[in-house]
Amino acid sequence: MSYKVLRFLKNHATVMRLHNSVVSTNFTKSIATSSQCKIQEEVAKLLALKAQITTEDAAPQKFTLKTPKGTRDYNPQQMSIRNGVLQKIINVFKRHGAECIDTPVFELKEVLTGKYGEDSKLIYDLKDQGGEILSLRYDLTVPLARYLAMNKINTLKRYHIAKVYRRDNPAMTRGRYREFYQCDFDIAGQYDPMVPDAECLKVVTEILDALEIGHYVLKVNHRRLLDGMFEACGVPADKFRTTCSTVDKLDKSPWDEVRTEMINEKGVTPEAADRIGEYVRLNGGVELADQLLQDEKLSKTKAAVEGLQGIKLLLEYCELFGIKDKILFDLSLARGLDYYTGVIYEAVLTQPIKIGNEEQTVGSIAGGGRYDNLVGMFDSKNKQVPCVGVSIGVERIFSVLEAKLAAGDISVRTSDVDVYVASAQKNFLEERMKICAELWNAGIKTEQSYKKNPKMLTQLQHCEENGIPLAVVLGESELKRGVVKVRNISARQEDEVPRENLVQELKTRIAALSVKENGTA
Amino acid sequence: MSYKVLRFLKNHATVMRLHNSVVSTNFTKSIATSSQCKIQEEVAKLLALKAQITTEDAAPQKFTLKTPKGTRDYNPQQMSIRNGVLQKIINVFKRHGAECIDTPVFELKEVLTGKYGEDSKLIYDLKDQGGEILSLRYDLTVPLARYLAMNKINTLKRYHIAKVYRRDNPAMTRGRYREFYQCDFDIAGQYDPMVPDAECLKVVTEILDALEIGHYVLKVNHRRLLDGMFEACGVPADKFRTTCSTVDKLDKSPWDEVRTEMINEKGVTPEAADRIGEYVRLNGGVELADQLLQDEKLSKTKAAVEGLQGIKLLLEYCELFGIKDKILFDLSLARGLDYYTGVIYEAVLTQPIKIGNEEQTVGSIAGGGRYDNLVGMFDSKNKQVPCVGVSIGVERIFSVLEAKLAAGDISVRTSDVDVYVASAQKNFLEERMKICAELWNAGIKTEQSYKKNPKMLTQLQHCEENGIPLAVVLGESELKRGVVKVRNISARQEDEVPRENLVQELKTRIAALSVKENGTA
Repeated sequence: MSYKVLRFLKNHATVMRLHNSVVSTNFTKSIATSSQCKIQEEVAKLLALKAQITTEDAAPQKFTLKTPKGTRDYNPQQMSIRNGVLQKIINVFKRHGAECIDTPVFELKEVLTGKYGEDSKLIYDLKDQGGEILSLRYDLTVPLARYLAMNKINTLKRYHIAKVYRRDNPAMTRGRYREFYQCDFDIAGQYDPMVPDAECLKVVTEILDALEIGHYVLKVNHRRLLDGMFEACGVPADKFRTTCSTVDKLDKSPWDEVRTEMINEKGVTPEAADRIGEYVRLNGGVELADQLLQDEKLSKTKAAVEGLQGIKLLLEYCELFGIKDKILFDLSLARGLDYYTGVIYEAVLTQPIKIGNEEQTVGSIAGGGRYDNLVGMFDSKNKQVPCVGVSIGVERIFSVLEAKLAAGDISVRTSDVDVYVASAQKNFLEERMKICAELWNAGIKTEQSYKKNPKMLTQLQHCEENGIPLAVVLGESELKRGVVKVRNISARQEDEVPRENLVQELKTRIAALSVKENGTA
Repeated sequence: MSYKVLRFLKNHATVMRLHNSVVSTNFTKSIATSSQCKIQEEVAKLLALKAQITTEDAAPQKFTLKTPKGTRDYNPQQMSIRNGVLQKIINVFKRHGAECIDTPVFELKEVLTGKYGEDSKLIYDLKDQGGEILSLRYDLTVPLARYLAMNKINTLKRYHIAKVYRRDNPAMTRGRYREFYQCDFDIAGQYDPMVPDAECLKVVTEILDALEIGHYVLKVNHRRLLDGMFEACGVPADKFRTTCSTVDKLDKSPWDEVRTEMINEKGVTPEAADRIGEYVRLNGGVELADQLLQDEKLSKTKAAVEGLQGIKLLLEYCELFGIKDKILFDLSLARGLDYYTGVIYEAVLTQPIKIGNEEQTVGSIAGGGRYDNLVGMFDSKNKQVPCVGVSIGVERIFSVLEAKLAAGDISVRTSDVDVYVASAQKNFLEERMKICAELWNAGIKTEQSYKKNPKMLTQLQHCEENGIPLAVVLGESELKRGVVKVRNISARQEDEVPRENLVQELKTRIAALSVKENGTA
C-alpha cells in the first residue's frame, strides 16, 4: 500500500507545480480559485495519507532479531580471519598476474536464465517494483561471461572476490550459507590446449599451500570424456547433461543410489548404468589415461579420445609445474553445472582437520573447469571466448579457522593499534587529545579513552585485552618537566621520554616490535 | 510457473522414496503393482514437465546485454582506482583503532521499516519465494544498530566497507548509482559528550587529506539546535522531522523553493518559515554559537541551548585536534535521515575539481552524525546504545579519479607482475613452464604467454603495455651454456645470468626497482 500512496504523492507534486503555474499566470480569477480549492482538498487528503504512512512506519517493532536464514554477520574476529585468508588468496592471484574486476550483486534475470540447469530454482529474485526484473548473482562465472560479451573482450586473466547467493538448505556450521564468498580466478582467451588449464591447478596448489589447511588432492576429469563415456555406455545424447548431474552426486551418495536415480529419473537403461558404474570407479594418473585410450569402447568414441588426450596433456603440464603428485585423474568427478565443456577440477582435503580434541571432515574446497561456450550465449552472433577457471571455497576455510579459534588453537588480533594514550590523573582529556592528534598525524595507530576521566586500571586493561604494545602515560609532574612516560605493556616497564621526542621514540619502538614479530613468526 | 513445478518435483522425490519402500517391503503384490503403475504414470508426467523447464531455460536469449539500471561493472583500471582509494581509507580507520565487521547484503524487511522516513520508498525488496520477507540494505548504519542490539554489544569502534542499494534516480557520471559503496566509521558506547563525535571529524580530515581530493569544509550542526530552532520559530513538535527533511534540500534548492515546500506540503505557517529562513542563512565558528546563545528566542528554548553548547564543545575539541580551520558551523545543514539525534556532519569540496581542461563540481563527499536511539529501536527493552559515525562518499571520489584517468591526468597499473618469461625461439613452452613454476614458488609475480609459440615482439609488447619491468628471455644457445637473459624492459637492455642464480638475481632487481619507485613517489 505504502508504495501506491507514495506514487500518488509524486503525482501530487505535479499537481502542485500546476497549481503554482496557474496562480502565477494570473488566469481568470474564478477558475483559479475553484481549482485552488480542489487542489487544497487533494493536498489535505494526501497529507493525511502521508501522515498515516509515517505512523505505520514508526510503530514499535515486535519481531525476532536475526539475520536472514542462511546468512550471518562477521564479528571483528571473524573479519580478521576472513581478511587474512582473502589476502593470502589475493597474493597468489596477483603472483599470476591476474587483474581484478567487479560486477553488480544483481543481474537482469534473463542473464542467469538457462545457465544452471537444475540449480536454477535456487536463484534469489528481486521483487518487481516497476522497471527491470532482477536476480541476485548465483556465482561469479556467469557475470564474467556477461561482462566479456558485453564489452567484447577476447582475453582476460582476472580474479573476482565477492559474495554470491543461493536459496539452498544452509548447513552453517560446515560453512554452507545462502550468502557466501567466492574467490574466482579465470583465464579467458583462445590459447593452446591445457596451458591456462594447468595454470589454474598451479594456482589452487599455491593457495592451499599458503593457507596450510592440510593435505589435499586435486581431482581432474574432462567433460568430453564423460560425454564419450556416456555415449560408449549407450546413453542417448540428449541425456548426457542430466546423467552428468546424477554422476556428480557420487561424492555424497553411494553408487547404488546414483544408479537408481539414473534409471528411475533420468531414463538411463540399467545396462547403460552398470557400464557407467564400471568406469566411474576408476582413478589414477597418466597410466590410466593410456589404458583407457586402449579401451575397446572408449577408443572408438571420438569425444572420449579427445577427453583422454586432453587429460594426458594436462597431466604432463602439471608435471612441469611440479604439482603432479597432487593431481588425481578421477572418472567419477562430474561437477553439477551445465556450462562446463572441457577439463573439470575439484580440490578435496584428504584428511579430517583437527579442531581442539575433535576432527572435522571438510571435503571439497575448490572447483572449476573449462567453459568454452558460455560467453557465446551472450553474444548476438554467438561469438565464443573460451574460458577456464577455478573457484576457491573460502567459506569452508573460514569455518575451519573459526572453529580453531573457538577451540583456542589459534588467536587473532582485531585491531592494529600500537599506542594507547592514557592519563594517570584527572583533567587530562585536552592534553590526551593533542597528543593523539600528533600521533595520528605522524601515521601512528593510536587510541585513547572517550571518557574525560577514565581510570588508570581500565586503560591498562584495555591495552592488555587488545594486544596494544605501548602506552603513553601522562602525568602532571612529568608534563611540567617536559617529559611523558612510555610504557611497554607486556613488560610492564615505563621510561621517561622528552615530550618533543615522543613521536620519534614511538616510531623506533614500533619498528623494533615489528621486526621482532616478523622474526619469530 | 517453474517454481511450482519444481516444488511438485520435490514431492515426487518423496513419492519415489515411498515407491522404493513399497517395493522393498514386499507388500501384497497386486497392491504394489497397482500403486507402482500409478507412480510410474506420475513419474512420466513429472519428467515431461521437467523436460519442459529445461527446454524453456535453454531457449536462445534475445535481450539487451547490460547491467541493471543504475549499476555498473568495474573494469581492472576502475578496480585499481577503487582498491587504492579504499586502502587509504582503511589505513585511516585502522590508525584510529577501528575493528572491521560485515553484515549480510539483505536484512529482514522489518529491520529496515521505519528508519528512513520519506526515503523508505527507495528500498529494494526481494521477491517472496517462500520464507522470510527480505530487503537489500539501504545503508550500513541500520545493520550496525541491528548487530549491536542482537548481540547485546555496548561499545564498539568499527568500520564497515560494503555496497548499499537505493532505487533512486541514478546520475552515474556524477557517481550516483543504485548500487554503491559506503565506507562507514562509527563509535558506539556511552561516553563523555562530543569526544567520539570530534574524533569522527578528525577521521574525515585525515581521509580527505590522504586522498588529496582538493579543498574541503566540514559543515557541522546539531539536531537539538534544529529542533529548538523550529520550536522557537513556532513549528509544532510533530512537524520537526518533516520540516527538517525540507531544510535538508537547501544544498540543492534555493530558499524560496524550500520555503514553498514547508508551507504547502509540511503545513508550516509562512511566518514560521520566514523565521527559519533567517536562521538557516547563518554560519560561522564558536563566535556564532556564542551569539546564538544570546539570541532572544533560542536562549529560551532548552533544545536550542543544548545544541549550541554541544556545538561549542565540539568546536573546542576540533581545535585540540588541530582541525578547527576545516570546520564550519552551519545552521542550514539538516541531513535527511530520521535517526539523527545530536551532532550532524557533512564534508563538502569547496572548489571544482580540474579534469583535463574542464572543471567538475563535486559537492558533498562525506556525512554522518549522532544517533542515540537507533539501537534501542531493536531492543525489546528499548535499551539504548548511543552511537556517532561518519560515512565517506567514495563513489564520488571514484568518479572524479576515473574522469582524471580518462582525461590522461593520472595513470594506473592493473597488475603487479614483475617478471615475464619469454622465449625467442619455438618449442620453449616446457622450459618456460618450469621457470614460471620456480619463480612462482619463490614468490615472484610472474606471467608468460599461454601460446606454445608466441612471437617475440608480441611478448615484449605485452610487457611494455602492462608495465612489467623485467623479462626472462630463453634461447637455445644460452640454455646450453647454462645461462638465461634478463631484460630490463624500459631500458631495453639484456644481461646474461647463470640459470641457477636466476631467482636470486630477479629478487635483487625487483627490490632495487621497488626502492627506486618508492624513493621517487
